[in-house]
This record gives sequence, structure tokens and C-alpha cells, in this order.
Amino acid sequence: MDYQRIFAQAIERLHAEGRYRVFIDILRNKGSFPNARCFAGHNGPKPITVWCSNDYLAMGQHPHVIAAMEEALHDVGAGSGGTRNIGGNTHYHIELEAELADLHGKEAALIFTSGYISNEATLSTVAKLLPGCIIFSDELNHASMIAGIRNAGCEKKVFRHNDLAHLEELLAAAPADAPKMIAFESVYSMDGDVAPIAEICDLADKYNALTYLDEVHAVGMYGPRGGGISDREDLAHRLTIIEGTLGKAFGVMGGYIAADRNIVDVVRSYAPGFIFTTSLSPVLVAGALASVRYLKASSAEREGQQAAAKMLKALMADAGLPVMPSTTHIVPLMVGDPVKAKRISDILLAEYGVYVQPINYPTVPRGTERLRFTPGPAHSEAMMRELCTALVEIWDRLELRIAA
Amino acid sequence: MDYQRIFAQAIERLHAEGRYRVFIDILRNKGSFPNARCFAGHNGPKPITVWCSNDYLAMGQHPHVIAAMEEALHDVGAGSGGTRNIGGNTHYHIELEAELADLHGKEAALIFTSGYISNEATLSTVAKLLPGCIIFSDELNHASMIAGIRNAGCEKKVFRHNDLAHLEELLAAAPADAPKMIAFESVYSMDGDVAPIAEICDLADKYNALTYLDEVHAVGMYGPRGGGISDREDLAHRLTIIEGTLGKAFGVMGGYIAADRNIVDVVRSYAPGFIFTTSLSPVLVAGALASVRYLKASSAEREGQQAAAKMLKALMADAGLPVMPSTTHIVPLMVGDPVKAKRISDILLAEYGVYVQPINYPTVPRGTERLRFTPGPAHSEAMMRELCTALVEIWDRLELRIAA
Ligand SMILES: Cc1ncc(COP(=O)(O)O)c(C=O)c1O
Ligand SMILES: Cc1ncc(COP(=O)(O)O)c(C=O)c1O
Repeated sequence: MDYQRIFAQAIERLHAEGRYRVFIDILRNKGSFPNARCFAGHNGPKPITVWCSNDYLAMGQHPHVIAAMEEALHDVGAGSGGTRNIGGNTHYHIELEAELADLHGKEAALIFTSGYISNEATLSTVAKLLPGCIIFSDELNHASMIAGIRNAGCEKKVFRHNDLAHLEELLAAAPADAPKMIAFESVYSMDGDVAPIAEICDLADKYNALTYLDEVHAVGMYGPRGGGISDREDLAHRLTIIEGTLGKAFGVMGGYIAADRNIVDVVRSYAPGFIFTTSLSPVLVAGALASVRYLKASSAEREGQQAAAKMLKALMADAGLPVMPSTTHIVPLMVGDPVKAKRISDILLAEYGVYVQPINYPTVPRGTERLRFTPGPAHSEAMMRELCTALVEIWDRLELRIAA
Repeated sequence: MDYQRIFAQAIERLHAEGRYRVFIDILRNKGSFPNARCFAGHNGPKPITVWCSNDYLAMGQHPHVIAAMEEALHDVGAGSGGTRNIGGNTHYHIELEAELADLHGKEAALIFTSGYISNEATLSTVAKLLPGCIIFSDELNHASMIAGIRNAGCEKKVFRHNDLAHLEELLAAAPADAPKMIAFESVYSMDGDVAPIAEICDLADKYNALTYLDEVHAVGMYGPRGGGISDREDLAHRLTIIEGTLGKAFGVMGGYIAADRNIVDVVRSYAPGFIFTTSLSPVLVAGALASVRYLKASSAEREGQQAAAKMLKALMADAGLPVMPSTTHIVPLMVGDPVKAKRISDILLAEYGVYVQPINYPTVPRGTERLRFTPGPAHSEAMMRELCTALVEIWDRLELRIAA
């Protein structure tokens, strides 16, 4: 048994496919988002502009958030020092859970250390408590949902992306008395399209299924109070469980679910990924609390972000660049090849000080490798025009097709 | 299908067994550990003394750690804004990984959002890359290791706790050419005993197995530089993978592994729990970096903690209290019944301002419910004497047996 050879081969396969990942070494500059510093090894140190952050509204640099974190740091210290059950349940956690329950109009909420673990822990725990449960899962669901469904050990039916007819076909074919759960996302983050939530809820009603909605890329971003697409479309009450993150539009880190009291209590009491881990640092919880509260009351950031995304999509389309048909704040540019996607990204960074990460398998299906831009309120029109000029120049240089 | 009834019954089962968990609502007072505030609903608000924190050395309140976090907060902001691959790789992450690799004398290290996810992601990913792999797992391994082993989908052999003869029996019975991995902990946190690491490594050599050691309760605490029991016993070089947390002795939050370059690269490249999640907040990474560096150079905290644990064990034994035979910093007191353990804990909090959480199933096996004390350098002899007096009084009141 030659372990070293096996591990070396696993790495070699990534190089051969052109998808070995090199992490770019950066520090953002607080107070001047989207500016950052890029370190040595990447033609640095030098200033760069970040175009691929999921801190969509720059809340991670918002004075309210920073002040709340600083206060918590000085009041209670760095970490919680324990699991939620053993010494790690602070007053901040309780306040944030109440705030998140209110955000989604639910009875209760539960915080996890990440959105990833909230999906994994909740899906696997809820399905395990329902013997014979069948989970109906959108084919483009995030890796963390897939992990939760697999770890539930239950039957899984995958429906074609956002395809209501296919979903209904699968629901109708399942035994009427089997417990069922439909798991899907609101905003699909690599394409920027949105699920037909109301219609999926109609099917759930018809076939007596629970619904599980990942709003990770929508919380803070949509709806009058930032409750996500289900807030914008006034559908939160129709969803059994809404899941979100504190690490994207809210700018901090952590994940959560919101649901009725019993479901939250079941997950709290049975999910290993919630129980057996040091709770989220009170410093982060305090920051998230400030961020959620702020975005409940202020829509200016959401509106600025939407305007920026709209403008960038229009500029790219005008320049003949292959911008994908996103209906949200996400602006993906199709490349379709991992080596070329990486090459474009490398040139942008080295020659233009533009940082946008190539997105390759397993984050997106092979053959659909892309660049994914997330312009924010602070990306100016001038920056966008420069970006498009750079992209057109690179598209020419690499002899990539420009749409007519 | 009546979902509500099923969830309500799941909660009812916990009440019936006396193990429904109520989280106590506290805030620690930075700068005066182990003092804290307990909120309403728990006879509060009132001052309490925390006896069950895993911030063993109070590093979560150390001025170096707080200062480093404050600086990062103001320099780069609250969150990383992305996964490690997509915008969330900061210079702090790179520095901390180098520091942790050095701490364990390994070529490389990798940070995760928690110790839980580092165990889950690493064990499942490494085993999946080794077709036919058999994992040999200590029966008292932590829930996060069990999750990783189960999610690997490979064969698992459970050996009796710290039982070398049983482990060898299982190794010898397995096909000689099958890939093998022995997964165990150094300090078992609910009993306070230590694994025979050298002897397990001998068996690993004899049967060509990889070794995976969880040092979560030992990093920062043992060894001249705080590298854990494997540092104290100079055994780090014999272990394939060492796993640790940033959330206990280091006082912050997060988890990591240290290993040779290829293994770390394989986990970095293949583990969904590492890839598909917002990276650890740079604020936490900066704090952890300060903490690890500080504890590499200073042994005063470790020594103070050891002295405190030794004194508390002696005082409890003198008082005839059923202190368990721990050889480490952990001081568990056996109760053996979930309802009584909770009752003792409730009385301590309500009448004595002492906070120690009852430990019940599933954290420990049923019938071994206990109280688990973690005295630190700041728990004075007077506090310990008062604690023992209170415990003896309660043991009397509840007619629990006191050892002769
Ligand atoms: C759809 C979706 N769900 C969940 C997650 C995980 O959230 P977190 O980053 O908080 O772990 C992500 C991205 O990271 C995501 O894109
Ligand atoms: C042995 C052991 N491993 C791993 C973990 C998980 O570490 P973390 O709290 O950083 O998730 C814990 C406790 O939480 C533990 O006791």
C-alpha cells in the first residue's frame, strides 16, 4: 500500500485537468471596498480591485458592524469557550436568533458555525427523524445541501433545475403516505437565476411535502427587510425551513435556519453538527446582529447593488461579451474551459489589477467554467467601463469568440 | 403524514428521559475570567463563576489576542467575503497555516471553520481517496470523527477505548494490502484520560496504517510549545495527520489539520467541507495567530492550569466526592443519572452562583452522566474550597453516596 503515490496521483489529476487551485493571497482595505492588496507570488504586493466578493453590500466594512464587534470583543472576549450547551450560549446568540426568526416571520431560528454546516446538519437531521423520508432535490443544489441529503441516508430524487413538471412527476410517483421534503435554493449563485418558489410551494401543498429553501445568496439582498426572495415575494410563511448565511450579504460569518418552534428545537436537540462544536464567536454574533438589524431598516445598499449589477450586465452585453442570462445581482461570464478561464483571470490580475476568480469544476459542471462578477454599490461606472475594455482586449488576444 | 406530531414526539422523548437541554444564557466578563453574568430565566441577571469553559487558559481574553483581533477588524473588516478559493484567502490565513504547521513539525496545515468540520471533512476525504480503506476507530471518539468516518462510506472497525490488544487483533484480521487508518484522540475530554500514542504508532508501523490524531483538548495545553500530547511526548513526526481546534485552549474559534504537503493539498482540493464555505473570518484568524504564537513561547498558563486541576482533584477526593481518575486538566465528577446531574447543576447555579453544565447523553454514554469541571489558572484555592463545600452539601441533600 503506497499511500504517498495515491495522494500524489490525486493531485496530479487536478493539474492534468487544469483545475488545480492556487489561492490568491489578499487583504481587503477596510473603508475603501472594493480595494484590496495582493501579496507576493501574485505579482504583488500591489493594489487590486475585488470583483468577486460575496460581501455583496460591503457590510463587512460597515461602521455599525465594526463598532458592534469591537464592543463585544472588549466586553466578552474572543471566543465563546464552549458548545452552545456547555458554556457557549451567550446573550448575543439568543438576541440574534430572535432577530433572524423575526426577519423571516418564523417562530424560531438557530445559528450554526457556517451556512455549510446549517444545510448539512438540518437536512440530515430532519430527514432522519422521518422514517422513509424522500428528499426531492434540485439538480443544481449547493454541495452543502447535497452533503446533508447524502448523510440523511434517505431516498433522494433529483429534479431538473427549476423544472416544475419534472418535480411534480417525481412527487406523483412517490408513495402518497411517505414523508417528503423539497430542497431548493432561491438564488442559484453561479447562474444568477431564481427558483419558482410559489409554484414549488403549491406542489408541496398538493403532495403534502415539507419545503426547505436555501436563501444564502438572497438574505440581506432582496425583500423590503432583506429577508430574501421569499420576503420579496411574500412567501416566507409557506416555507417549512428557510436557511441563510451570515457570511455573504451580512458580511460576517456563520449560518442559520428559521422555522417553527418544534422543528428548530428538534434540530437543536438532535443535530451533531450543531451540538458537538464550539459555538459561533460572540464577536461574530454581535457583528451579524448589527448587520441584520441595519439591513432590515435600510434598502439603500440593496438598491445600489442592483443598479450596479444592471449596469455591468448592460455594458458587457453591449461589448459583445458572453454574459449569462442572470436575473439577479450575479453577473457570470461564460468561458466554457477551465484553462482559458484561469488564463483570463491571471491576465486580469497581472495586467489590470482586477481580481475575479475563475469558477471551475466541482463548483460548476465541467464545460461551463466561467468568471463570476459581483459588482457592488462601490464599483463605479468608470471601473465597469475599464473592466469591459480589458475583457474585450483579452477576449481578442486569446481569440475567444465575441457575440455579434 | 402528520409531520408536526413526529417532531413533537421527538422533543417529548427528550423530556421523558430527562435530557432535554436548556441553554443557560450568559455573558463572560472580559478581563475577569472566570466571572460572568447570567441572564433572566436562570435566576439572573446575577454574577456567576464559570467552571466548565473550554477556554482553558483564558486566552480568549488575553490582551495579545484582543489587540490582534481589533487590529484586523480595523484593517480588513468583519468577514472574509468568500470561500478560500473565491476571494476569501487572506494573508492572515496563510500566516496561521504556516504557524500551525510549525507548531506540529509538519510541512503544511489547513484551517477549517471549526474543529468539527476539520474532522468530518478530513476523515471522509482521505478515506474516500483510498479505495477499500478500513478505519480503526476508538470507541470513545468524538461525534465529529464518527461523522467523518460514516461519511467516508468505508469499512469501520471500532476498538475498545485505548485497548491496544483489541486494536492489534482488528488490524491483524484485516487484509494486509488494504489501506488502513487508525483514528483516535490524545486527551479524551469527558474522562480526562490519554491515549497510548507511541504504542498506537508502533501498531500503525507494523500493519502499515496511517494515523489520525485529534488533539483538540490538548493543543495549547501540553508540550513545551503547546503542540499537544504528541509534542510533550515528541511523537508528532510519527503521526500522519494531527487535528486541532482554535476554539478551546487557543480561545478563539476554528479548526485545522497539520500533515505533509500532499495530504494537506489533497484535503484542500477535494473536501467539500473545506471548499464550499466562507472562510474563517480574518478577525478570528488574526486572534488565533496571536494566541498560537503566544503559547508557543509561554508555559506559565499551562503550568498554572495544571496546578489548578491537580488541586481541585485533590480537594474533591479529600471530600469524598466521586472524582473520576483523570490524568489531565479535566476534572469530571461522576453522577450516573441525567436527572440528578441536572438537579445538582441547577442548585449550584441558583444557590451558589456556580456554573457547571451537566453532561448527559449523547455527549457521554447513558448511565455515566457527570459534571465536568475545567479549573483554570484564575480559579483560586478559596473558590475551589467553596465549591467542594457546596458539592458536599448538595450530595448530602440529594442523598448521593459519598465515598468512604
Ligand atoms: C447556495 C449556498 N448554500 C450554502 C453555502 C454555504 O454558506 P457558508 O459560506 O456560510 O458556509 C454557500 C456558499 O458558501 C452557497 O453558495
Ligand atoms: C475531541 C473533540 N474533537 C473535535 C471537537 C470539535 O471542535 P470545535 O469545537 O472546534 O468544532 C470537539 C469539541 O467541540 C472535541 O471535543
